[in-house]
Amino acid sequence: MISFSDRLASAVKKKKTPVLVGLDPRWAQLPTQFTDGKDKSNPDVVAAAFEDFCYAVLDVVAELVPAVKPQAAFFEQYGPSGMKALANVIAYAHKKGLLVLFDGKRNDIGSTASAYAAGLLGAGGQSPWGADALTVSPYLGDDSLTPFVETAQERGAGIFILVKTSNPGGAMLQDLLVTRSPSMGEEGSLEPLYRVVGRYVNDLSVQSRARGISAANPYGDVGAVVGATWPEQLTELRQVMKQTWFLVPGYGSQGGGARDVAGAFDENGLGALINNSRGILFAFRSDKYSNQYGESNWERAVEAATRDMVASLAAETSAGRLDF
Amino acid sequence: MISFSDRLASAVKKKKTPVLVGLDPRWAQLPTQFTDGKDKSNPDVVAAAFEDFCYAVLDVVAELVPAVKPQAAFFEQYGPSGMKALANVIAYAHKKGLLVLFDGKRNDIGSTASAYAAGLLGAGGQSPWGADALTVSPYLGDDSLTPFVETAQERGAGIFILVKTSNPGGAMLQDLLVTRSPSMGEEGSLEPLYRVVGRYVNDLSVQSRARGISAANPYGDVGAVVGATWPEQLTELRQVMKQTWFLVPGYGSQGGGARDVAGAFDENGLGALINNSRGILFAFRSDKYSNQYGESNWERAVEAATRDMVASLAAETSAGRLDF
Repeated sequence: MISFSDRLASAVKKKKTPVLVGLDPRWAQLPTQFTDGKDKSNPDVVAAAFEDFCYAVLDVVAELVPAVKPQAAFFEQYGPSGMKALANVIAYAHKKGLLVLFDGKRNDIGSTASAYAAGLLGAGGQSPWGADALTVSPYLGDDSLTPFVETAQERGAGIFILVKTSNPGGAMLQDLLVTRSPSMGEEGSLEPLYRVVGRYVNDLSVQSRARGISAANPYGDVGAVVGATWPEQLTELRQVMKQTWFLVPGYGSQGGGARDVAGAFDENGLGALINNSRGILFAFRSDKYSNQYGESNWERAVEAATRDMVASLAAETSAGRLDF
Repeated sequence: MISFSDRLASAVKKKKTPVLVGLDPRWAQLPTQFTDGKDKSNPDVVAAAFEDFCYAVLDVVAELVPAVKPQAAFFEQYGPSGMKALANVIAYAHKKGLLVLFDGKRNDIGSTASAYAAGLLGAGGQSPWGADALTVSPYLGDDSLTPFVETAQERGAGIFILVKTSNPGGAMLQDLLVTRSPSMGEEGSLEPLYRVVGRYVNDLSVQSRARGISAANPYGDVGAVVGATWPEQLTELRQVMKQTWFLVPGYGSQGGGARDVAGAFDENGLGALINNSRGILFAFRSDKYSNQYGESNWERAVEAATRDMVASLAAETSAGRLDF
């Protein structure tokens, strides 16, 4: 079985870009062809519209990017029918040759974490949801993360653990200066919580390399979520997390630009996926693309926004070296 | 609209116990009447068995306890059909007059947190899932919690934020000694992360009381998850979180006993819900109940384990005062 890290590296090299398209369907922003005359109070109707919209987006982006990231919340919002639509969207993305990162930020204590991992991780019939990777929250600590790591490795899947999130409020806990409790051993110097988590994630990623990742690929199967909105910390974390894939949200609508994420990559343009959700899905509503494309050409706006992001990252970061 | 906190206080007083029954169905532990001759590789089959089993459990416990806590992971593990079963179980619990705490440990950045809150919180047709309350993870900080608090209050629902979890590994981050970063203002003295989170949760809970909670009820709509496996910290947190409902996991199979959770209650026996999942659901498999009941009387074992837990808490904690 090929490891997640190797599959991801291959996909990034093949598509020559680290662009990750986030699938965040929002009823009020869908092109009206999906919503006109429909009953938005009926979750089945909304779920079906989300499914059709995502299929159309996948038809456009499948040739352009290595992976997509459905955001579970937008589907779960509409109940069981929303979750069924999510499963169908994941299956369709796989059919189009894309890797799928399930953005659920799940976690729980050990045996419950195992249930999440068993259900979510592993494509090709290995799990009901079929995700190639899952985002995971670290607050419950090491024994809550281990079941995800183990299941991921058994199934050629990966996880991305939250380290430094893109939202302003993320600083509330993540930027606190911490030291080890005396009961946990020697006290060290103070450092931000996100760095403690980051180093731990990198250790897990290094360990994961023992399970058959190719020597040419420096990254393991345990990645980190680090927001584009914190360029300094992104660069700092890359220095202490040299063997960890970064999933970088916050590009575009949250204010991060191509230069802000440059520090996420290694010199070969590998090591990071840069996510864009609304900026691609709803490009036809943006100042930049609405005049040229308009609603009736919303798919062309998706394509243009994706191609422009690919070009910006190639111009402003080492991702440009993926071309060679 | 009656607040969650008032509805919970009424339910605890009416049933005269703080016992919360966790619904964690596991295929391998179900009574064989639900599994014999069935294809466990088919998620639809497993989901249907989980649904039938949970209905039967609810039929037994509805008269005995104020609330139940379905664990989303065990349903999500079986894909969309598992999630459909979860929705049906929630609806059935409501029909039986129980409050439902959806244990999903969800969270994400602001607008995505809003989607989770909109979909999950609010019974009686206010949301597709219909939860009276939801467990939420705090790693993403204040602006990730606000959408849950606001939606909960609009809908007479509540949330329980992870503070000190029951698993050993929870200590890894939660027990780190922290201080505020210089960029966030004056540095304070070192204290464990769980206490920083706990104080913040209590502040949110106090604020929530401005929205119509009865004066006789000291608790707000924002609760905390604090494990029974940390009796000292439970008592310590109660001192700094006097207006916060505690959801206490870890009783029974994780090793916490009635004396360990005594510190969670106020002098009237209010302020905490004590969860037991496996110890009740699968009591017929335990040393304590298997001889007397056996598999064919598994429902009587559920009833006995529930009644015994009610009695233990009444004998060993101030929950005994709920009788008066």
